[in-house]
Amino acid sequence: MRIAVIGTGLIGGSVGMAARRRLAAEVRGCGPEAPRAVERGALDVACATVQEALDDADAAFVATPLGVLEQTVSEVLAVAPADCVVTDVGSTKKGVMAAHDDPRFVGGHPLAGGEAAGVDHAREDLFEGAVWYLTPGPHTTGVLYERLHRALNGIGARPVAIDADVHDRLMAAVSHLPHVFANVLVAQAFRALDDGETLPATGPGFRDATRIAGANPPLWADILLANRDATVIQIDEAMARLSEARQALAEGDRDRLLRLQSEAAQERQALLQAQLGEGPQRELHVMVPNRPGVIAELALRCGRAGINISDMALSPIDATQGEVTIWVSEKDAPRTQELIDAL
Amino acid sequence: MRIAVIGTGLIGGSVGMAARRRLAAEVRGCGPEAPRAVERGALDVACATVQEALDDADAAFVATPLGVLEQTVSEVLAVAPADCVVTDVGSTKKGVMAAHDDPRFVGGHPLAGGEAAGVDHAREDLFEGAVWYLTPGPHTTGVLYERLHRALNGIGARPVAIDADVHDRLMAAVSHLPHVFANVLVAQAFRALDDGETLPATGPGFRDATRIAGANPPLWADILLANRDATVIQIDEAMARLSEARQALAEGDRDRLLRLQSEAAQERQALLQAQLGEGPQRELHVMVPNRPGVIAELALRCGRAGINISDMALSPIDATQGEVTIWVSEKDAPRTQELIDAL
Repeated sequence: MRIAVIGTGLIGGSVGMAARRRLAAEVRGCGPEAPRAVERGALDVACATVQEALDDADAAFVATPLGVLEQTVSEVLAVAPADCVVTDVGSTKKGVMAAHDDPRFVGGHPLAGGEAAGVDHAREDLFEGAVWYLTPGPHTTGVLYERLHRALNGIGARPVAIDADVHDRLMAAVSHLPHVFANVLVAQAFRALDDGETLPATGPGFRDATRIAGANPPLWADILLANRDATVIQIDEAMARLSEARQALAEGDRDRLLRLQSEAAQERQALLQAQLGEGPQRELHVMVPNRPGVIAELALRCGRAGINISDMALSPIDATQGEVTIWVSEKDAPRTQELIDAL
Repeated sequence: MRIAVIGTGLIGGSVGMAARRRLAAEVRGCGPEAPRAVERGALDVACATVQEALDDADAAFVATPLGVLEQTVSEVLAVAPADCVVTDVGSTKKGVMAAHDDPRFVGGHPLAGGEAAGVDHAREDLFEGAVWYLTPGPHTTGVLYERLHRALNGIGARPVAIDADVHDRLMAAVSHLPHVFANVLVAQAFRALDDGETLPATGPGFRDATRIAGANPPLWADILLANRDATVIQIDEAMARLSEARQALAEGDRDRLLRLQSEAAQERQALLQAQLGEGPQRELHVMVPNRPGVIAELALRCGRAGINISDMALSPIDATQGEVTIWVSEKDAPRTQELIDAL
């Protein structure tokens, strides 16, 4: 397998390392850090151009900064072989999906990273156990989607298909708003401590709540801008909720405070439940017509239903149909079968 | 040493265990969980009344629920021996200090606890390394303050003196507002995931940011109410900051987003720096007039300057003066000496 990595920082470098060591792939890449990526074992070859990196590639990962991401995906698609799957690692998906309706393209977003950027912090196991969102387009080719899915499994990630719109709304709620909140918390704690007081005041709760405050400023300015609409909606909703809590507090309404606190306890529990790990796996077989979009549709439906596809294999039967084998957890198997039957 | 614990839940039970095992104290207590506290080794004797528990006590800890805390402190002070130091463990301090101007009373607030309440979760090491705020009143007796300080050191805590007003403002910023924020975050994530989607969406950042969401509803309804004014101010300030971030985002103002993010990074760094651990210790001696309030004043000044008093000893010289020995970190020693000289 030959893999191209365009942009070899923390994420691209880690993809390269994992692909070389875990998939025995030949990895070619380009970008300002490419020579260093070769030294660190993240690339076999540092290329001078995108075209050179894409030569005969089976899969390409675009991992450039968000500001140039869409344009780089266009450049890669322009030179990628006809049977090469192209994906990106940007943290918002609506924009890049709207810009690229190509059967070879699948949007992607690994829920992994670290505070420290750059290929010097790249690690083979960065994606171990991490959810890796995939946003196939309406014309994405099944065989290419499946190849990407398997490659991601192979480097330790858990690929989950999701609508680009839902992805961005979800990220606004579970990632972008929390970053904005963490910034507000440190600003206020800093000022509460700042008028002559330097107290050892904050416990582990505060440290946990603000670990993400001020994360990588240029990257986060771009992430927030890329998901502007959804994040503004989340901030507006958050202010409405804060007003409600403020009113209950100002009025000394203990019943309402108790209700808000109890609801939060239930919601937190529900969110934790939704993320329980998988147990034993079951293998399911599906016959599908041999046309673009079918695999993507199946993956999307499973993703929507909260079913994690641990692994996936695609075998063409003839020119008109193929067989898909998917592995899901024992507990999800009956629901998955229902979804398959309904397809 | 004889210690009374009024209210033997998680905190009171842990005080009892630590005092019995680490201070070799005899611990008597009362409250609904007192018989179970004896079984768990948190009390020597379960008493039927506050008066019985306070019999011949050297120190008393009031660890009842916030709703009855002030009244219980009054009951304890009414029957406590003349040379018994009385403290509480409530998470807000202004109210209880305003209600009790007694030379035997010192307000207290350990930054420790856990999700699970009750004496069954009490542990000897609950306070190990934890900041334990003390709010001495204007008439608190030095010898009693020092006895409490040493006892807290002995059970592993790090006592820090602080003004009651500053304490409550600080807690609103570093604890009460973060709890309100965490509740808002889970409410929004729950709704973003709730319309037919059950996705494995949230990473470690979100889990960290929402660990405190929905914590112990009756306790937290009372904590928020007890610190109502300061928390309302924090919510108002938070909404103003959110509006600023929202505006920058809606206007696509990357420079302003970058500035907000960079400021948060600096503020987080400053908050972390303020909490660095101690190094080697130095012993300092201070001659002080033998009157109430002197030790409290010294402890308060050190607290305000961010100087942690690791240990403290008080030796009366004659009827008019005494010698205080305090231990501070090597790096804080020159500043502490300056503070002492200025006193």
